[in-house]
Amino acid sequence: MDKNPQNLVFAIDIGGTYTKIGLVNQEGDVLDSRKFNTDAKQPYSQFIKKLSDEIQILVTPFKKKYTIHAIGIGAPNASYISGKMISPPNFRWGESVIIKDNIQNLLKLPAYITNDANAAALGELYYGAGKAMTNFIVLTLGTGLGSGIINESKLIYGQYGMAGELGHVNVYPEGRQCNCGLKGCLETYASVTGIKRTVFELLSDNNSDSLLRSYSYDQLDGKTISEAAHKGDELALKAFDKTAKILGRKMADSVAHLEPEAFILSGGLSHAGDLFIQPLKNYMEAALFKAYKNKVKIILSKATSSDSILGPAALAW
Amino acid sequence: MDKNPQNLVFAIDIGGTYTKIGLVNQEGDVLDSRKFNTDAKQPYSQFIKKLSDEIQILVTPFKKKYTIHAIGIGAPNASYISGKMISPPNFRWGESVIIKDNIQNLLKLPAYITNDANAAALGELYYGAGKAMTNFIVLTLGTGLGSGIINESKLIYGQYGMAGELGHVNVYPEGRQCNCGLKGCLETYASVTGIKRTVFELLSDNNSDSLLRSYSYDQLDGKTISEAAHKGDELALKAFDKTAKILGRKMADSVAHLEPEAFILSGGLSHAGDLFIQPLKNYMEAALFKAYKNKVKIILSKATSSDSILGPAALAW
Repeated sequence: MDKNPQNLVFAIDIGGTYTKIGLVNQEGDVLDSRKFNTDAKQPYSQFIKKLSDEIQILVTPFKKKYTIHAIGIGAPNASYISGKMISPPNFRWGESVIIKDNIQNLLKLPAYITNDANAAALGELYYGAGKAMTNFIVLTLGTGLGSGIINESKLIYGQYGMAGELGHVNVYPEGRQCNCGLKGCLETYASVTGIKRTVFELLSDNNSDSLLRSYSYDQLDGKTISEAAHKGDELALKAFDKTAKILGRKMADSVAHLEPEAFILSGGLSHAGDLFIQPLKNYMEAALFKAYKNKVKIILSKATSSDSILGPAALAW
Repeated sequence: MDKNPQNLVFAIDIGGTYTKIGLVNQEGDVLDSRKFNTDAKQPYSQFIKKLSDEIQILVTPFKKKYTIHAIGIGAPNASYISGKMISPPNFRWGESVIIKDNIQNLLKLPAYITNDANAAALGELYYGAGKAMTNFIVLTLGTGLGSGIINESKLIYGQYGMAGELGHVNVYPEGRQCNCGLKGCLETYASVTGIKRTVFELLSDNNSDSLLRSYSYDQLDGKTISEAAHKGDELALKAFDKTAKILGRKMADSVAHLEPEAFILSGGLSHAGDLFIQPLKNYMEAALFKAYKNKVKIILSKATSSDSILGPAALAW
């Protein structure tokens, strides 16, 4: 298809909190977008109704002048192959919903779906930090840890469309309880929620003063931990170091599988900057098999949260 | 290329102990083969001289009637992209040797190289247990643990041709010393050498009687451990269970990366049969992320050690 600016795709990013929808051309320009509460604890039928209304509002002004060719959807635990979301944690939509078919019917257009982090990886490949690369792994370090793997410029989907769930590799077999039902999953350590849990572990293990002693578990967020670390708070720095150690070692395991050129990091935890990235590099390097040493880059994504529809858009294109 | 029986490739499998060479047609029939000591502790130049002589002996009778099109090479720590063997453990050939170019010059034919386990994965894909599959992981559980990853019917090579070194994912950061210089690598637990080390750990930790108390470290081999287990020796059974637990959990991590349809196991450790494979399945299943449960098969390779040239042959074809 030529890069006619009149050609658009419809992109949908379904998150546990917000859903974003937008119209995107082949250059990755977002012509218009909307955002609404996913209300993931409410019934699925209510979400579909709301999505349908929002789509009408967004699409109507573009109907005459533009052609919409396809729909790209990014959603937690979504399978490219079955088109379903399969028991996504934090959603109360039941065991599985056939969301691809439902959205296809709303817009009467071909739809493509993959999980949110896989979509983010496609976004990096077509429009982001991965544009000049053919082999890389995207890690989204937010509430959980999502991942998408690009090999020879293609997303790895796996046998049933569910590959790339690095948030659920195991750190400690009898470790922290994960939302997925397992124990010791990487995302219980290496995510915004993970570092918060690590802060509370350190607060319980140590007696040292810390700015973070005045926060309840419900109050504490990633930004506060990061600010404390930047002010030199020892405990906060220790939390980042511990998180970097756990994540760096598991990234070395991922290198032993895939030998990527780089990891591209995004999400709240990655925003802490060098005080996290520098130890992360060191711990990863120390754990790398000889043949991989001093070759694998760690890059920060330039994508902002408003770019999250670019991944689904890349999938649709 | 049509499947003319007069068309052959030259296949070379370089192991730490033996090197096998053979002439193979497109159906995977081995027309003739030879085997000689690699003498990996002797200088590389000596190996090349010997290889050259062996090639002449093998090729001469076929020269007139057949056409040899290409050379496929499987070798430890070999890179598909650089054509080098990079500091292979157990070899005293220096930091790296440009073996692909050297062999290419011997035969004046285009050569292709990859590491031995990657070649084994190609062998399974074209001629073996992976023939009907598109996504699988081959684990060779011998002296070490080698691996090759097939995704959408293609080998994953990685950025510099060195992907798929699952023997060097980490089990315990301060675990057993590995030949590669790291500590706690999977192959120090899940290989013939690994289970032998586990037997000695259990002999030291426990007081129970065991058939294995009469063997020195140098005497004990995988077959003896397996026979003791089949006779009901508790300690030998415990060693298999512990090995299965460690490997099964790491296989679950590999599934979280790649979502393969199956693992194909080969090598001495896999020959122990159900007393190893059954606990292996159970431990892997228990550690799998929900979306992957009850989907991933564990299959035993049908390849024998004399089939080891089929992998390099598949690479050449």
